[in-house]
Parts: sequence; structure tokens; C-alpha cells
Amino acid sequence: MSAPVFLPPTSYDYVTVHKVQGPDMTTASDVLAAEEPLEIRVGYGPVGQREHRTLSITMRTPGHDFELAAGFLLTEGIIRGRQDVHGVIYCPDVKKEEERENVVRAELAPTAAVDMPRLERHFYTSSSCGVCGKTSIEAVHAAACPVLPKAGPYLDPAVIHQLPERQRAAQALFEQTGGLHAAALFSAEGELLLLREDVGRHNALDKVIGAALFQELLPLHNAVLLVSGRASFELVQKAAVAGIPVLAAVGAPSSLAVSAAQNFGMTLCGFVRQNRYNVYCHEWRLQQPSK
Amino acid sequence: MSAPVFLPPTSYDYVTVHKVQGPDMTTASDVLAAEEPLEIRVGYGPVGQREHRTLSITMRTPGHDFELAAGFLLTEGIIRGRQDVHGVIYCPDVKKEEERENVVRAELAPTAAVDMPRLERHFYTSSSCGVCGKTSIEAVHAAACPVLPKAGPYLDPAVIHQLPERQRAAQALFEQTGGLHAAALFSAEGELLLLREDVGRHNALDKVIGAALFQELLPLHNAVLLVSGRASFELVQKAAVAGIPVLAAVGAPSSLAVSAAQNFGMTLCGFVRQNRYNVYCHEWRLQQPSK
Repeated sequence: MSAPVFLPPTSYDYVTVHKVQGPDMTTASDVLAAEEPLEIRVGYGPVGQREHRTLSITMRTPGHDFELAAGFLLTEGIIRGRQDVHGVIYCPDVKKEEERENVVRAELAPTAAVDMPRLERHFYTSSSCGVCGKTSIEAVHAAACPVLPKAGPYLDPAVIHQLPERQRAAQALFEQTGGLHAAALFSAEGELLLLREDVGRHNALDKVIGAALFQELLPLHNAVLLVSGRASFELVQKAAVAGIPVLAAVGAPSSLAVSAAQNFGMTLCGFVRQNRYNVYCHEWRLQQPSK
Repeated sequence: MSAPVFLPPTSYDYVTVHKVQGPDMTTASDVLAAEEPLEIRVGYGPVGQREHRTLSITMRTPGHDFELAAGFLLTEGIIRGRQDVHGVIYCPDVKKEEERENVVRAELAPTAAVDMPRLERHFYTSSSCGVCGKTSIEAVHAAACPVLPKAGPYLDPAVIHQLPERQRAAQALFEQTGGLHAAALFSAEGELLLLREDVGRHNALDKVIGAALFQELLPLHNAVLLVSGRASFELVQKAAVAGIPVLAAVGAPSSLAVSAAQNFGMTLCGFVRQNRYNVYCHEWRLQQPSK
């Protein structure tokens, strides 16, 4: 496997995965897309009275960060064009090593008309849109997310293979529109418990967890969650708060999703489709039933 | 075609689309997943001193809104369990008709420990996470997004068929990880101009627009944009700000993406794959070349 070209080495990450195909499990090396927080700051105001402000923190794949900042400023209506931004730099004055190259500052032209009251209403620093991975993982540990019990459920690896078809069969709206994410809770035996759909995958997960809350099913220590898309850090975090020990995704996980699941004690499966999947961590919950 | 079951009629929307298969274009009825803003408010504090506050606005598919609110509050660490939330209601005191059933309020238990300073740091009302469709569309019109010129480019419909394969061939990191969104700009003849990848589809689009900004290519009045996933309202909005007249998505559009594109004068194509696609509005830019 050769490294991707034209991208900084921080754009991807190598991991060891357990590849399940039918009943067989083997170990292999794999490449994941990196996911890290980027803080976007602006410097603005007339010469001699410059101010700095954080506008946004977004979970992104490192690479082309200055373009990301400039595009964000344009498409969110903060700048009107090239003439409004003098340049974008990595902030040299970050306090922690892990913030290096994860904090950019766009220096706006002194003449750029920036409506700061509007920005204060409309932008934010949000855990919801992804805070610095480390800080947020620490915060989740401290506040709402105890590490999952180092206990079952123990799943027959074959159960995971069945989940996507069962989810799809229950998706009322997807069949019509072809355009919805789903999150579904299953028992350890693969029985569908709850399914919700939404255009946003975070919303689909929040809906299913909210339904479990109203039905007094929390914490979901014996449930398996299947999500229709990719596994991001944020989905892992939300699942952990609800006590879900096994997360399976039809799509790929990000690097930060894997490290968060590792820390939380969560079994994380990805690429669950066509009788195959990968297990990224805590594979001990998957055990062939004794004959 | 029968309506989806078990979902409120606000979860989906019927539209007329132009279906392109190979060189043929026909008209058909289709169903789209609805996308509308949901404002989540909380009521909190001791009896007699209750306060209300907006925590979040998210673009969601209507349906199971109370579960969405409860799940959001739990997974974001605002409540710890069922005992912290007395109930969730649609706010009866909304000011506009379009806000009805798009604003919910969770009444927290007077004993629920809510860390409001933390919430103020971490939550927000954000155009970035999707403001009320109508308000935001108006805001974009007024501020940064003139309606696109009612002019070309005029595209051979066959050009759209070629875009996904050209995008995929240029995705360095996707080949390795299977887990990245891409946004790519093409000329009206289908030549690849710029491509960027990211775990977040909004980031991929911001990166490619930022690159165009630095290369002084804005406004992109002759470009065609291909995005790897679904077409949401927000992607349509960002593309419109950059002046992009044609947006093609490999996945499905939402109902609000279609109405926004209609208003902006943007040609919107969805399900662009396997020599087929749908055109949702402003199909006049797609014209067979005269022989």
C-alpha cells in the first residue's frame, strides 16, 4: 500500500484492523482519513486597533487549511472577495503542542466591512460542531460520559453482517427518497429495537437516543448501534454518552473516531456491507458462539 | 407510488423532476426528504424564576422532533437522564406561521443542574448549522448572494454523466481510506479545474471555494460543481455565494435544497451515477448540442 500523494502526512493515519469476511477474521493494516479540529480566527479592525476573535471550530481533515478558512469566510458572508483578506496563517501563539497547525488566523483587510454583532449572533465555539479532540474527549469523560463497562454484550460476529439489510428494510422514507441517514438500535442478537431517519446523521442518532430515553432504556449497555454513513468522532461521542458499547457504520470511520472509541471502551466496526466489515478496536466483544 | 408510512406528511415532499438516462430526458414525479430548521429551546430554573433560552438550530427532517430534542440534550451533556426533562412541546408562542412545529421547548426539571455559562460558551444560533430556511434564504439574497445571472453556461447533458468518474479518479485520499467527501469544480465542458477532499462535505466545498478565491476565479459563473454526497440546503447556499450556476450531487437533494436552488436560479442535479441523473430545477442550462 503506497501513501496518498499530494496531501500532507497529517491527512491520513495508519491503523491495524481486524477484517471480518463471512466467518473469517484476519488482521491487516489500513489507512484512515484523519479528522482533527480546526479553529478559525479572524484579525480585523483598523490599523493600530486590530482585534482577534474565534469564529468557528470545525472537525476537518488536515490539508488546505488556509483555503478552508478563506472559503468559510466567503460562503458565510464575512468577506466579499479576495480583497477583504490579506492572508491566512497558522497561529504562532498557540498554547499546546496539539493546537499547532490546528489554529488558523485570517487577517482581514482594515477596510473590510465586518459586522461583528452579526457574527456574535451567528458564530460560536461549539462542542456540537466539534471541539478540539483532546479537550472534548476529556470533557466527555469528566462530564457526561463514563468509560463503558468492560463487559459484554458478547456478539456472534455473524450478527453484524445482518444489520444493514435489517436497517434498510425498516427505513420507510429512504425507500422513497434515496436520501436519508438512519440510526438503528439492535439487541446483541441482532433484533431491531428502534430506528430513526433524518437528512442529518447526527439528528438521526439524537432521535434514536431520545426515543430510548423516553422509553427508559438508558443506559444502552446491551445495544448495538448501526449508522448508515461514516463514523465520525461526534457520532462515537454521542453513542458513548448513551452507554452504547458497539457501534457499526456502513461507511468508513475517521482516525479520531477510532481513537475516541478506543478510549471509551467501545467496539467500533466500519464498512459493514456485503458480508464484510472491519473492527477497529475492542474486538473482544465479538466472539464465535461455542459449538 | 404510495406515500411513506409511519411518518408525518411533513417528512417528505413531492416534486416534478427531469430524469436523464443516457441521452434521454423524461419528466416524472419524485419524492424528496424534507429538510427544515428546528429550533431547540429549554425552559430551566426554579419554580417562579423559570427562564427560556434557544440552544440550537439544526436542519432536520420533520418527525420525532421531541425525541430529537431530548437526545440532543442528553448527548450534549445538558441533561443526565429522563428525570431531568419534564416534557417537550411545540412552542405555542411562535411569531410566524412557518415556525409552527419548527420550534420545540424542553421543560427541564427545576432540580436539573444546568450549567448555563457552559451552554453560552458552547451553543449558539448559527447560520452555519442552518437557520430557518426562509429567513436564511432572505438573508443570503440580501447580504452576500445575488441571484445567479439568468445566462449560461449551456451544458451538453452528457457532460454531467462524466463528472463522477473524473472526480473519483482525482481523489487521492479516498482511494486509500474509502471515507472522504469531495467537492470538485469543472468547466462547462467537463474539464476538472479543482478538487478538494474532507471528512466533512461542507469543509470540502469551503476548501474548493477558498482555492478558487486565492486563484482569483470568483465569481464562478461558468463552473459546474460536483459534490460526492447529498445536496443539502447549506451546500446550495455556499455554492450560490460563490456564483456557481450548476450543482450536481452524487446523492439525493433535500426539499429545501431544491427550493433554494430554484430561488437562486441554480441548475440542480441529483443521483448523478451510472449514466443517469435527475434535474430538479433550471434545466434550461442543459441543452443538446446542435448537430
